[in-house]
Amino acid sequence: MLTPAAITKIKGGICAPQGFQAAAISAGIKNPDDPRLDLALIYSPTPCTAAGTFTTNRIKAAPVKVTQAYMKADQVQAIIANSGNANACTGIEGVDDARQTAKIIAKQLGIRQRQIAICSTGVIGLPMPMQRITPKLPELVENLGTKNGEDVAHAIMTSDTCKKEIAISFTIGEHRVRMGACAKGAGMISPSMATMLCFITTDANIHQSCLQTAVQEAVEASFNRITIDGDMSTNDTVLVLANGESGMPPIKRNSKECRQMREALTYLMLKMAKSLVRDGERVTKFVTVEVKGAKTYLDAKKVGEAVANSALVKSSWNGNDPNWGRIIHAVGYSRAMVREELIDIHINGKPACLGGQQAKTSMNTLRKIVAKDDFTITINLHQGKAEYEVYTSDLSPEYIDFNRSEYAYWKQARKDGLV
Amino acid sequence: MLTPAAITKIKGGICAPQGFQAAAISAGIKNPDDPRLDLALIYSPTPCTAAGTFTTNRIKAAPVKVTQAYMKADQVQAIIANSGNANACTGIEGVDDARQTAKIIAKQLGIRQRQIAICSTGVIGLPMPMQRITPKLPELVENLGTKNGEDVAHAIMTSDTCKKEIAISFTIGEHRVRMGACAKGAGMISPSMATMLCFITTDANIHQSCLQTAVQEAVEASFNRITIDGDMSTNDTVLVLANGESGMPPIKRNSKECRQMREALTYLMLKMAKSLVRDGERVTKFVTVEVKGAKTYLDAKKVGEAVANSALVKSSWNGNDPNWGRIIHAVGYSRAMVREELIDIHINGKPACLGGQQAKTSMNTLRKIVAKDDFTITINLHQGKAEYEVYTSDLSPEYIDFNRSEYAYWKQARKDGLV
Repeated sequence: MLTPAAITKIKGGICAPQGFQAAAISAGIKNPDDPRLDLALIYSPTPCTAAGTFTTNRIKAAPVKVTQAYMKADQVQAIIANSGNANACTGIEGVDDARQTAKIIAKQLGIRQRQIAICSTGVIGLPMPMQRITPKLPELVENLGTKNGEDVAHAIMTSDTCKKEIAISFTIGEHRVRMGACAKGAGMISPSMATMLCFITTDANIHQSCLQTAVQEAVEASFNRITIDGDMSTNDTVLVLANGESGMPPIKRNSKECRQMREALTYLMLKMAKSLVRDGERVTKFVTVEVKGAKTYLDAKKVGEAVANSALVKSSWNGNDPNWGRIIHAVGYSRAMVREELIDIHINGKPACLGGQQAKTSMNTLRKIVAKDDFTITINLHQGKAEYEVYTSDLSPEYIDFNRSEYAYWKQARKDGLV
Repeated sequence: MLTPAAITKIKGGICAPQGFQAAAISAGIKNPDDPRLDLALIYSPTPCTAAGTFTTNRIKAAPVKVTQAYMKADQVQAIIANSGNANACTGIEGVDDARQTAKIIAKQLGIRQRQIAICSTGVIGLPMPMQRITPKLPELVENLGTKNGEDVAHAIMTSDTCKKEIAISFTIGEHRVRMGACAKGAGMISPSMATMLCFITTDANIHQSCLQTAVQEAVEASFNRITIDGDMSTNDTVLVLANGESGMPPIKRNSKECRQMREALTYLMLKMAKSLVRDGERVTKFVTVEVKGAKTYLDAKKVGEAVANSALVKSSWNGNDPNWGRIIHAVGYSRAMVREELIDIHINGKPACLGGQQAKTSMNTLRKIVAKDDFTITINLHQGKAEYEVYTSDLSPEYIDFNRSEYAYWKQARKDGLV
């Protein structure tokens, strides 16, 4: 077992593992006058084992389609990512734009086009402003260096208010392994592969099928357990590149080392996933919804997701209201097997509802807990032993206000002659 | 066929049909100082055929449980309803309170306890203030009269800003039949028996099983097609009482007359359902989401509900943003069979997205349509012939603000010594 105690946090984000380089520049994708970083490259000169999970939305952005096809055919060892435009619902032209970008980068790096993963995030439905991206690609490759991990974390941000990056080191056998990650949120976040990008680099040496399984399990225990607004994006992507530079012997399937890798990936992804919720669009609270005593795992999940996605429950949290009546009403419509008279609801361990009715805890005590910016709702169904946890947030008037219009994007696209 | 042209609107709401009486008084259920009507009674001295549909939430309020049991055992001919307290999650005591209310009313009316339907709407989880309700029941019965339909429509309102009532008359065979309805919204409104109460009276003469089928079909085509916030309540109830006072011969199953009744019920319920959406909590727009060309009815329904419930889509409507990118992203996660390159989206008939990509319609044209307070989104999947319609609204910052706290209810309950 790889206990959290065996994990050391280190500096450097995605550049912390041996042999990874990065670069980020501003291409003015959203707006030519915007100086913020919006184009990023991650690269390992050593060939990598790569694994990923992608959005389960049936409408997939062009870069998701292209990357999925490339990863089936070849070994990815570079990731090019942009913010400001999702390149989603852009037809054949969108796919061509993604391929063309990969082609140019591949040529400059001296690798094959299919060794590049492409990721985009931003507004849906507008063509990519290639006239601004293409000329910047050579500069991006020239800037590659081992100190630019943080720049990449900045370049992929959209409505995020802060960068999300982390790096850890741990020991597998006698070998020190490093793992780095960066991710972005912050709206369209819902279970089933949350709306986000996350890139993870590691110098571990690991077999592809073993890495893919570990990544899928780690995503299920982290990104698939968060929800901000219940909306699932077209661009969700988690990519892990392992270049083996730690010098360890290759990790094999079903080995102790493979389990340790999965544990390290879960640790890292859970940190990233929780930081996405904390920085969710206009979020004021981080709430853990813990479901216990469900008959089945699926029942526990249904209850957790119904509560975590209820507009009324989330509104009450925004108002510091420990409204267990709204929580139990969402439990009731979750379609899980529940019996009203058995349901207990605790807030940070204090009973709010026992046996489906109001508990004796004073309302003031409960209000003080819900007024905090981090608390846990525990729902015990007393129907069985299955459990599930969801990480969610409140819903604020400011969220709606923030999401009222993306008109500025269209105006710029019109200026660019793209629409 | 009963065309809308064959239907005449008349005055009187639920008292419009022959032989129905009503009364409403203020019992100060929410707050003893609140003078608003909050306790209502509908009664037909002639025995009725009754049919109803109830919330599918697994947490059902006490009055829903009691009414469902009564209706199985006897012929309902009176409805007692209150606003201000849902009597939900109130345990055995809540059930006793509902039964006790029915018992007192039944005794005064000289009918059996099981001939009374009981409905409550309001906050969840607080005991009923019976000390204020019980003493008012005799006055309620004494006030029964044929002019008080409008008072009942007022008494069942919670966060509604206006009463919802309607009455129609139409001909079945040679007999003029009248039908009246009142309903309340306005939050916790979602498909699968929307969060609401609706009472319908008619002087038609109709067999119970025929009425029940007609009611279920009409609910499926009306109340189950609206959504305001995606939250399904514990108290939803639609009740129809038919007392046969029109003097017509009884309507039988599978007859032409039975179909006409279903059509009249659908007409009435659709009017009520749409008015609930228009008066949804802090709603500024009424939006019809029309799905066409789906492979199956279920697929069409999934797409309609995903779009109508998306927080991001609803936020963009609030901002007058004709954001088809967010609409198609919700289509994609609906789990229906869709192919991106076949999807067309029209707004009031103007193409916004054709074949999964931006159409040529100018953004200004689309913005002007979405700025209206009533428009239709048509999504054609081009996969088959199935269709579905959902009636929904925008989501406003004011909705969240309005729903931040129900603390005042708890404060009153504390004053009343109930918690």
